[in-house]
Amino acid sequence: MKVVGVDVGGTQIKAAVFDLNGNMLKSTRAPTESRLGKERVLSNIVSVIEGLFSEDVAALGVAVASPLDPVEGILYYPPNLPGFGVFNIKSFLEERFGVSVVVDNDANLYAYGEWVRGAGRGAQVLLCVTVGTGIGGGLIHGGNIWHGAHGMGAEFGHITVDPDGPVCNCGNRGCLEAMASSYFLVGYVERRLREGVASRLAPLRGVLEPKLIYEAALEGDTLAHEAFAVVGKNLGVGLSSLINALDPDVVVVGGGLSKAGMILLEPVKKEIYARTLKGIRDRIRVETAVLGEFSAVYGAAYLAIKIIGGDR
Amino acid sequence: MKVVGVDVGGTQIKAAVFDLNGNMLKSTRAPTESRLGKERVLSNIVSVIEGLFSEDVAALGVAVASPLDPVEGILYYPPNLPGFGVFNIKSFLEERFGVSVVVDNDANLYAYGEWVRGAGRGAQVLLCVTVGTGIGGGLIHGGNIWHGAHGMGAEFGHITVDPDGPVCNCGNRGCLEAMASSYFLVGYVERRLREGVASRLAPLRGVLEPKLIYEAALEGDTLAHEAFAVVGKNLGVGLSSLINALDPDVVVVGGGLSKAGMILLEPVKKEIYARTLKGIRDRIRVETAVLGEFSAVYGAAYLAIKIIGGDR
Repeated sequence: MKVVGVDVGGTQIKAAVFDLNGNMLKSTRAPTESRLGKERVLSNIVSVIEGLFSEDVAALGVAVASPLDPVEGILYYPPNLPGFGVFNIKSFLEERFGVSVVVDNDANLYAYGEWVRGAGRGAQVLLCVTVGTGIGGGLIHGGNIWHGAHGMGAEFGHITVDPDGPVCNCGNRGCLEAMASSYFLVGYVERRLREGVASRLAPLRGVLEPKLIYEAALEGDTLAHEAFAVVGKNLGVGLSSLINALDPDVVVVGGGLSKAGMILLEPVKKEIYARTLKGIRDRIRVETAVLGEFSAVYGAAYLAIKIIGGDR
Repeated sequence: MKVVGVDVGGTQIKAAVFDLNGNMLKSTRAPTESRLGKERVLSNIVSVIEGLFSEDVAALGVAVASPLDPVEGILYYPPNLPGFGVFNIKSFLEERFGVSVVVDNDANLYAYGEWVRGAGRGAQVLLCVTVGTGIGGGLIHGGNIWHGAHGMGAEFGHITVDPDGPVCNCGNRGCLEAMASSYFLVGYVERRLREGVASRLAPLRGVLEPKLIYEAALEGDTLAHEAFAVVGKNLGVGLSSLINALDPDVVVVGGGLSKAGMILLEPVKKEIYARTLKGIRDRIRVETAVLGEFSAVYGAAYLAIKIIGGDR
C-alpha cells in the first residue's frame, strides 16, 4: 500500500507518493495557476495526483495554505487561491479518487513532517515556524496537531514582537511576520543602503533577494550580517514568548530563510537563551528544518498514513 | 463519596470538601507558615486536610505554586516554599491519607476550575491568566491541562510585551508580568504622583494598593483610570499574541486585579480587538474569572473527581 502527499501552494503544487514506512518513492510538481481560477486549480491538483496515483494508493494527504476545518476538510477563503470561497476539498478528492482524504493547513503539516521524520523527531511539544515571505506556525503536542478552537491553528507569525512596530498585513503592528520575514530582511537592507551604509550589496539595490544577502553574509559583508542579526533577534524575541508560554522541547525554524543556517540561527539562539525561563532554556533544542521544500508534502503523507492506521 | 481540594500558596493554605457533582460543602483556610520550613508547612497542610477529611473522601486534589511533574506529583524547588527542594507531595499525602492524590500547578488548576464550572465552561480552548503580584497562566484544551514538555505549563506571565521594557523577576525584559501585574499598577501610579500629576491618590503615596486605585477609578479619578488603561493595554497586547498563537474560544482574566471588572477588562478587550486576526476576533469571549479566590481549590477538586472517574 501507498499514500500520496500533496502541498497546494499559491504558485506551485508539490506532491509525492510514499510507502507506508514514510519513504518518498517519487515526487512531482506543477504550477498552481491560481490566477486562472478555481476550476483550473482543481484540474491541476487532480492531474498532479493522477501522475502519482495507482491502485496501491490507499489515502491522500493534502496541505493547503488556508484557514480550514480539518475534520470536514473545508477550506475557508484561501487567500492565495482566489475564487475558492468555502470549498470542501476533502469531499471533492474523495469522490474523484475513491480513497480517504485528510486535509490540513500547510504550516501544520510542515511541522508534522518535521516531527515525524525531521528535526523535531520524537519531541513531546514541537514548536515550528516557517520563515519566508510570511511566517507560518505549527504546534505538535503528543503527536497531535494543534488546531485551536476555530481551526486557525498556530498563527505564530502574528504574535506581537514590538507593540509599536511596523504595520503587518493582518492590520496589527509589530507582528513577528512584519519583523522577521524575508520581506523584512530585504527591506531592512534596502533601507540601510539608502542611508548610505557601505556594502557589497549596494549595486544590487532594488533587485535584492534573501539569497543574495545570505551570500554576501558568507563573504563577510557587515551589512548582510547586521540584517540577519536583526531578523534573528526579532525572531528570537517572538520565539522566546512562545517558548515561555508553551514549554516545548524542540523548536524548528524552517521556510526559505532557514537555508541561511547558523547565520540566522545563532542570533535566534542567543536571544532565546537571554529571554526564556531558567527551567526551560537549558533543556530546549533549536534546530533548522531538514526536510526542505517538501516538508508539508511529507507531513501530508504521514497524516494519510496515520488515518489508514499504517506504521511509519 | 467526596473529594478534598487544596491550594497551597506561599502565605495561605485554602481547602474545601466537595461532593462528586462538584458542589463545595465546606471550606477552610490556614496560614502556610512557609518561613518556618518544610516540616511545619507539611504539618499545616495535613492539619487543614484532616479538618475536612472523613471516610467518605475518595481522593485529594492539590494545587501548588511550583514547577512540578504532574504525573509523579513531584515539586521542583517551589519558590514560595523554601526548603522543599525536590519533594514528592503526592506520595507523602497518599501515604498519610490512604487515598489517591493528584497534584498540579495552581495556575493550571485555576484555569481548570474556570473551565469546569466558571467563566470558561465548555470552552474547546481556554486561555487563562491570573493577574496579581505576578501573572500566572493556564491553558485547557479539549478538557486537558497543558503541561508542556518539562512540566513548566503555560507561563503566560513571561511572554514579551515590549522587548525593551522593564526588567522582570525572571531576568528577561518587558515580560507581561513586568508590565501588567498589580505591582506594575501601583508602581505606575506612584511614579505619576512623583511627577506631580493631580489625583485623589496623592495623599496615599507610599501606601498605595490596587484596591485603593480601583476605588479611586470608581470615583472618577483620572490618574487611576489612566493606570488601569495602561495595564489593560499591556495585558491586551500580551493576550493578543497568545490568542493569535493558540486560537482559543474563551479567555479568562482572573487573579486579584480582575476584581476591577470592566475598568480593567474594557481596555483589554479594545486592544485584543485591534490586534487579533479577523478570523478570531469576532468569535472570542473575554471574561473575568467567577470562582474567586477558591478557583484553584475548585480546579484541584475537579481533577480529583476526574481521576476517580466521578461525574461532575
